[in-house]
Amino acid sequence: MVRPSGGRNAEGTRRVEEKRRRIGVVAPSSRLGDGVAEAVQALNRRLYGERAPEIVFHPQCFLSDGHFAGDDLTRAEAFVEMANDPGFEALWFARGGYGSGRLIEIVLPRLTEAARDKTYLGYSDAGAMLSALHKAGFGRAVHGPMCQDIVREGGEAAIARALAWLAERSPGALEASLRPGERPLAFNMAVLSSLIGTPWEPDFRGRVLMLEEVAEYMYRIDRFLFHITSAPNVRHAAGIMLGRCSAIPPNEPDFARTEEEVARYWCERSGVPYLGRADVGHDADNKVVPFDGI
Amino acid sequence: MVRPSGGRNAEGTRRVEEKRRRIGVVAPSSRLGDGVAEAVQALNRRLYGERAPEIVFHPQCFLSDGHFAGDDLTRAEAFVEMANDPGFEALWFARGGYGSGRLIEIVLPRLTEAARDKTYLGYSDAGAMLSALHKAGFGRAVHGPMCQDIVREGGEAAIARALAWLAERSPGALEASLRPGERPLAFNMAVLSSLIGTPWEPDFRGRVLMLEEVAEYMYRIDRFLFHITSAPNVRHAAGIMLGRCSAIPPNEPDFARTEEEVARYWCERSGVPYLGRADVGHDADNKVVPFDGI
Repeated sequence: MVRPSGGRNAEGTRRVEEKRRRIGVVAPSSRLGDGVAEAVQALNRRLYGERAPEIVFHPQCFLSDGHFAGDDLTRAEAFVEMANDPGFEALWFARGGYGSGRLIEIVLPRLTEAARDKTYLGYSDAGAMLSALHKAGFGRAVHGPMCQDIVREGGEAAIARALAWLAERSPGALEASLRPGERPLAFNMAVLSSLIGTPWEPDFRGRVLMLEEVAEYMYRIDRFLFHITSAPNVRHAAGIMLGRCSAIPPNEPDFARTEEEVARYWCERSGVPYLGRADVGHDADNKVVPFDGI
Repeated sequence: MVRPSGGRNAEGTRRVEEKRRRIGVVAPSSRLGDGVAEAVQALNRRLYGERAPEIVFHPQCFLSDGHFAGDDLTRAEAFVEMANDPGFEALWFARGGYGSGRLIEIVLPRLTEAARDKTYLGYSDAGAMLSALHKAGFGRAVHGPMCQDIVREGGEAAIARALAWLAERSPGALEASLRPGERPLAFNMAVLSSLIGTPWEPDFRGRVLMLEEVAEYMYRIDRFLFHITSAPNVRHAAGIMLGRCSAIPPNEPDFARTEEEVARYWCERSGVPYLGRADVGHDADNKVVPFDGI
């Protein structure tokens, strides 16, 4: 574990540190990009100065094993180590890509009480692990920006938003439609589709489900919505909101329906109310959605 | 409905025709390509001469509505019309693409007894409707080549194999590993993934599940297998066989695992026996797999 040098030695420093929020970063999916950790740390200091939360990047973030940031066991152990450490208030997903679902059955049985009292922040592929944690009652799963988002155009705004939530629970970071008492869910469509019918499918009953997508053909967006709205549990949701569907490749032939038309169609077919657009997506504007509500 | 002219008028002709197998072709997904119907009819006559089964292409096969061969209601009505017609022994899917799952909830409530006594032949996207029909006890769902396969390189062999099954129940058309008493299933991974957790997910208990894929990144093949092998019902399958995974685009970074390594991994993780390779795939060699066994 990489800790700032000296922080644990001087009594005075320790007292200050113990008041600071500590955020652990782990990469259950793909490897963190070069320079991302430094850029996030720099932004954190620039925004918060001495009050900045301490962000600790687990060395596992920088490992590589084919598609993944280390093999399954290595990634799972890093996740469990930080999740079970009561010194961290939050566990922040380094980035998406693919791989967090591979860890669910390795991680869940190893989590302890400390893992229950923690915020888990991420989206996209991280949604698989977030859903499993949420379903199993471990901590507070939250949809929102990840470290790697800093490389997006305007990405510092996304990281600032994530930090505003992690450090201050700033209401300005939240998706604007959220109301007290609601318990929303937010997922990438492909990731949620890969959870439907598994033990880690969330409980949709009475909940607003926000769905976003990136770089998928329209026929696949349609198929994901067919799948998701055909799941019996989803049919008991309070409603579906459509996040942004970005970078849709041209369909051959033209699909002749937009993502919103398709979302309305499946909501009508399935009897789930369509509740309009949600301010989430694979972009720098992606807002924070705490699964336990605001 | 397009019928050969005169067949219903002369008593002698009718007697001969009534002995001929009649196959209806419908397109619940994408539109049939130009010239495909003629090529299939010509091959049928060349192979079987006067004994050739009568193949009737529903006019709906040639409609177009964006991605689909007509809108949902039109495609569903064509399907229902042929499925409920006792004059057809078999209903043959014109081609895959995407769209048969959209019709399930429209088609199933309209099917009558005649639809139960029928063979349904297709694969790829047709797997969604095949699974729903099979689950609901309508007829004999069979994985195998579709009309559009004739345009593949060596595609006449695929059509000849489909006809050998439809016209003669030729054992040579079958996937070679099939044994009497077994009730196998064969699906495209993406299509089966889109059925997991829906009412149309097949009953996997005690069955051998063959899985093939085309044009999907390795990380997606991995995610489909994560999803499929994480479904509780799949964990009661007798085993999984891996069909061909063709035209896999390069993964970035390299996935560093082959499709067979990934299939073995998920079988080991889920406790489902890995039973080796299956002779199915998106190609001219794709063999016939009757879900009710041989």
